[in-house]
Amino acid sequence: MSGDSIGKLFKVTNWGESHGPMLGAVIEGCPAGMELSVGDIQPALDRRRPGQSKIVTQRKESDTVQIVSGVVEGKTTGTAISLIMVNEDQKSKDYSNIAELYRPSHGDFTYQQKYGIRDVAGGGRSSARVTAASVAAGAVAEKVLFQRHKIEIIAWVESVQDITCKLDPERVTREQVEANIVRCPDPDIAEAMISRIEEVRKQGNTLGGVVACCIKFVPVGLGEPVYDKLEASLAHAMLSINASKGFEFGSGFSGTLMKGSEHNDQFIQQDGVIKTTSNYSGGVQAGISNGMSINFRVAFKPVATLLQKQQTVNKQGETVEYQVRGRHDPCVLPRAVPIVEAMAALVLCDHSLRQYGNKL
Amino acid sequence: MSGDSIGKLFKVTNWGESHGPMLGAVIEGCPAGMELSVGDIQPALDRRRPGQSKIVTQRKESDTVQIVSGVVEGKTTGTAISLIMVNEDQKSKDYSNIAELYRPSHGDFTYQQKYGIRDVAGGGRSSARVTAASVAAGAVAEKVLFQRHKIEIIAWVESVQDITCKLDPERVTREQVEANIVRCPDPDIAEAMISRIEEVRKQGNTLGGVVACCIKFVPVGLGEPVYDKLEASLAHAMLSINASKGFEFGSGFSGTLMKGSEHNDQFIQQDGVIKTTSNYSGGVQAGISNGMSINFRVAFKPVATLLQKQQTVNKQGETVEYQVRGRHDPCVLPRAVPIVEAMAALVLCDHSLRQYGNKL
Amino acid sequence: MSGDSIGKLFKVTNWGESHGPMLGAVIEGCPAGMELSVGDIQPALDRRRPGQSKIVTQRKESDTVQIVSGVVEGKTTGTAISLIMVNEDQKSKDYSNIAELYRPSHGDFTYQQKYGIRDVAGGGRSSARVTAASVAAGAVAEKVLFQRHKIEIIAWVESVQDITCKLDPERVTREQVEANIVRCPDPDIAEAMISRIEEVRKQGNTLGGVVACCIKFVPVGLGEPVYDKLEASLAHAMLSINASKGFEFGSGFSGTLMKGSEHNDQFIQQDGVIKTTSNYSGGVQAGISNGMSINFRVAFKPVATLLQKQQTVNKQGETVEYQVRGRHDPCVLPRAVPIVEAMAALVLCDHSLRQYGNKL
Amino acid sequence: MSGDSIGKLFKVTNWGESHGPMLGAVIEGCPAGMELSVGDIQPALDRRRPGQSKIVTQRKESDTVQIVSGVVEGKTTGTAISLIMVNEDQKSKDYSNIAELYRPSHGDFTYQQKYGIRDVAGGGRSSARVTAASVAAGAVAEKVLFQRHKIEIIAWVESVQDITCKLDPERVTREQVEANIVRCPDPDIAEAMISRIEEVRKQGNTLGGVVACCIKFVPVGLGEPVYDKLEASLAHAMLSINASKGFEFGSGFSGTLMKGSEHNDQFIQQDGVIKTTSNYSGGVQAGISNGMSINFRVAFKPVATLLQKQQTVNKQGETVEYQVRGRHDPCVLPRAVPIVEAMAALVLCDHSLRQYGNKL
Repeated sequence: MSGDSIGKLFKVTNWGESHGPMLGAVIEGCPAGMELSVGDIQPALDRRRPGQSKIVTQRKESDTVQIVSGVVEGKTTGTAISLIMVNEDQKSKDYSNIAELYRPSHGDFTYQQKYGIRDVAGGGRSSARVTAASVAAGAVAEKVLFQRHKIEIIAWVESVQDITCKLDPERVTREQVEANIVRCPDPDIAEAMISRIEEVRKQGNTLGGVVACCIKFVPVGLGEPVYDKLEASLAHAMLSINASKGFEFGSGFSGTLMKGSEHNDQFIQQDGVIKTTSNYSGGVQAGISNGMSINFRVAFKPVATLLQKQQTVNKQGETVEYQVRGRHDPCVLPRAVPIVEAMAALVLCDHSLRQYGNKL
Repeated sequence: MSGDSIGKLFKVTNWGESHGPMLGAVIEGCPAGMELSVGDIQPALDRRRPGQSKIVTQRKESDTVQIVSGVVEGKTTGTAISLIMVNEDQKSKDYSNIAELYRPSHGDFTYQQKYGIRDVAGGGRSSARVTAASVAAGAVAEKVLFQRHKIEIIAWVESVQDITCKLDPERVTREQVEANIVRCPDPDIAEAMISRIEEVRKQGNTLGGVVACCIKFVPVGLGEPVYDKLEASLAHAMLSINASKGFEFGSGFSGTLMKGSEHNDQFIQQDGVIKTTSNYSGGVQAGISNGMSINFRVAFKPVATLLQKQQTVNKQGETVEYQVRGRHDPCVLPRAVPIVEAMAALVLCDHSLRQYGNKL
Repeated sequence: MSGDSIGKLFKVTNWGESHGPMLGAVIEGCPAGMELSVGDIQPALDRRRPGQSKIVTQRKESDTVQIVSGVVEGKTTGTAISLIMVNEDQKSKDYSNIAELYRPSHGDFTYQQKYGIRDVAGGGRSSARVTAASVAAGAVAEKVLFQRHKIEIIAWVESVQDITCKLDPERVTREQVEANIVRCPDPDIAEAMISRIEEVRKQGNTLGGVVACCIKFVPVGLGEPVYDKLEASLAHAMLSINASKGFEFGSGFSGTLMKGSEHNDQFIQQDGVIKTTSNYSGGVQAGISNGMSINFRVAFKPVATLLQKQQTVNKQGETVEYQVRGRHDPCVLPRAVPIVEAMAALVLCDHSLRQYGNKL
Repeated sequence: MSGDSIGKLFKVTNWGESHGPMLGAVIEGCPAGMELSVGDIQPALDRRRPGQSKIVTQRKESDTVQIVSGVVEGKTTGTAISLIMVNEDQKSKDYSNIAELYRPSHGDFTYQQKYGIRDVAGGGRSSARVTAASVAAGAVAEKVLFQRHKIEIIAWVESVQDITCKLDPERVTREQVEANIVRCPDPDIAEAMISRIEEVRKQGNTLGGVVACCIKFVPVGLGEPVYDKLEASLAHAMLSINASKGFEFGSGFSGTLMKGSEHNDQFIQQDGVIKTTSNYSGGVQAGISNGMSINFRVAFKPVATLLQKQQTVNKQGETVEYQVRGRHDPCVLPRAVPIVEAMAALVLCDHSLRQYGNKL
């Protein structure tokens, strides 16, 4: 059973390879009657797009999306929405030298073993290029969530290696995030991050870091115990993003250092609404959203593609040296921000339909 | 759409409440022809069972499992396996004082809002008691995995609050884990953990911590990109456990501090098998198992049920004080160990069927 | 992937064997807050129960249902509802003589080949006894449908072999159906059917026939093109019933003899509601209910278990003679009536949740 | 939850509208390593294509398929296969006169009520044009089935209105079926059918009929009791085809006239293989294929689009007259043949993966 789709009621099927002719997503279950145009989707893709700044890969893709089904006269029809993006800058010749070897910490070895075949060009299906389809679908989900609940999803780069910003998640704005190319809302820290990335890039090396995310105006009631708790669905989505290594929500791992008396979020009533005075629960209690903001963090490993010489084995198991050239991200974090937002949107939209039905 | 089931090919449907007459699990998709008896399941339940030691809840449940379908003459038939456990020590009277209020960081508020009704006795469906059904089903999965691949799953308590043991995951044995009541394989650290738990319990307070897990002898090829990567499925399963707050695998969050040149796991061939010299990948590359051990960690928050006086609001939003008495875990970590193992087994068994089909 | 469950939002998992200790169903997705008691379920089971009249099997089962989860203080909680029935009259010794051979037109051969193992006693999982669990779950679905939409589902025996009644489906009442033991609403035809069944039973032979069903007060909008059309879901459910051989709705096979000008159902407006003057569409157009009654028919083959001597092969492929004794239905039609109704209820309830959400 | 996809392990997601820019299918779960090119798919599309003869619609579509993902260097990679067809002959202007009314026995009324919006042009998503995507995907399934099991699927027109051919299903060949434009293997009956269709077409009227199908060389063991019996899956697939009204397999409705002693298929052993001397079971016993040929029949109603003047109501419920012009099928039967084959292939391929795993 393939893993090409995600979601149960708002379901996205992702297809395409890094260097194939096109890639895309089919969305099933989008509510009918919602205005939808390319203008709702393209901005998210532009934020994920390669070539957008000096600290990301220089592959040139416009990632121009087309809506080829499911929308008539500018409105969704309630049936399958098909989104397509043409690959423009495939350079398949670049990859001939790695066809016979397994690059360390890539999918070369595991894909070859699992499928008995793999698409060498650009990593084929294992490339993070496939997240473009996720982002396109996520933009549709985000629109549904905004229309139904006014939900806002904002992610940002919290750390690059050991350079970290600590911010009140509730106060981070999209404008702050987009104010610099590394997508860290603190301008000074952003500067330091950018310098570090450039420095490491010149060494042919790479970096990882952490993306934080805050989701505001979530209605009470999203999440389905016992196995489809909201945090379980979010964890699933986040760990499906290329290069992610960890997920925590609310107090997360550091919450394990607290005592129960410190960690419990006390309920109060404010303006007729029941809230909590702290939010160690991260907006989710017993698997169900409680109306507070949902906060979570996602760890991303340093990019596996180095421009340094490396050793590995080839298909015959012989030790070989190799060195790649070309266009690669020295650090995925800035481009991971819209991906994290998109995956969060897919999860929340699915749970919104599960709780509130499929009417707009 | 309910969240009562997990898995796609090895599917488990969980039913029952903390204080209902019984609880159970139905397993669909278990390979036919496997020997299966209560003796394969009961030991895991005994490790999760309340009342097993002085540092866990004193509720008395034998959690005796019955296999009531899907097995004939001691062998699985390939059709639905139904497992049932009778609740023996329900004390529903204990809970009348909390029926009208929302306990902090419990599911009282969110269940009431989501469903418009909730089972007050023992937290009903939101109780960690439902993990008994997961553990029973997980024991069956574990047997399938051992029969097909010799897979071994070993979890242990790595930390309680700030008391931490650092061990080579490859060398931890089930015997070490079971040698003490806190299930920490380091006997000295275990002693310290037990003392801390007892101390905090006497204060009516509670603790959290981290469970680590190592899965050995995993075949190459488990995991389904792009959205059902093995780590995504594991994250989903772990975050569905009551009180869990985070998941990381391989290098996890600390891997974000490394450079790519440090983090990449170099391939070598050893005795005809391709391995990696380090395992920051945690046994999974590009979402697919690579044959190395799978390592991950799960954070558990301090238990929400305190025996201290607390403030909260009632259904009318009025601030009220309350204090619970009775039988509660001061720290879920020791009992979380078999639950983590069971959920890991469910995930791997599902992916094993996806990759290798349903024949034993 | 097992086939033990049906439905996507109102999902039923069926477990148990003909001669196992018990059988049951788990219902996921039932709306919260609905009053539900054994009294809502038992009457349907009583109509399906063996031993209810002289023309059905004389196995004695009370089929007493217990609700063991998902209901608290008489109301559904929105989480998994577990229904259990204890088998009382297993006579496993009866079946020893057929363990080594394959009875004609039973599941003996195919189960053995598919699973490599089979439960010989009473046909195990292949027995129509498993429909008891479907009927129990169907009764819950029927209650949901009545509460939400006032939907009424009435099935009846339209023919036994060549004895047929032709009735206006809209006018058939449950009282007429239950007025005689064969469940044919026309008393004279019913008499003839009963005589025929008794005559054939005395010969140790069996009969088949057709069950018709009419579903009234269906709201417009149930059914999900392109592959989950309402008629597709109904066909799926009906062909999953033991011994069924065909399904047709509206004009069905005889509609193929008409011209389009005769077959088209003309729309009119009546009392502010758009209806059709005829109903060859059977209440479904383009896969979606149109508000007219849904009419369909299901064919059931003559029962495979004869009390005559028969020839077959054993596991070694050798030709053998055998003769069964014991308790068998000479004709499944009377007991198929509540099963058809239950399966229809499951389908409509699932589609109702898909269209109208999970709120009561 | 949308109904745009079908299948569980071999899953097809169908997208596109009659007059949208393109339509297509995404296939998940196709085994890796199979040679696949446009040449494997186009022939099936050519058989379904409009404009292929004088007795079908004259809309001109080449239905040229592109494979845009999931195949590298001519072989399937095991990941999502995306198939795309561009619509070439949309004449959206033709439909302006019907935007405000509900054509009888079409989806106009039900789509409008269900979704609150509909694509008027060519019926949008309710058009049988969406079966092109099913046929494209079905061709891939057919190749998988042939590679794994040598399965052959042959459908033909058995009747048009009351003109019927009765043939031994085992002996019908694809060559006979394709020898005439109506796809009836009996040349004399075919002639009569063609004359009848032409005659009725000249009257602006339409016809229905029956497609029969025989699937040979099916391995024992396909089908998953209790709810995913092979016949249940086939019924589901067949009733999801536009204009279908009924499904029967093996003896079907006429089997209800037989006694058990006549209907039981006696087992014998022949050349070491266990077979049955008759095949009233239609190749399926207890929901599982028994190795005999699978035989079934599908009823199709007369086409709803007449070129005669008709009465109906508009959105306001007012009675209106209308008359369509343009390109329509007077009888869908000839074009339904490849659609029935494709849907059967999808079902069998899904069940083949369920029983035999995903390896080629």
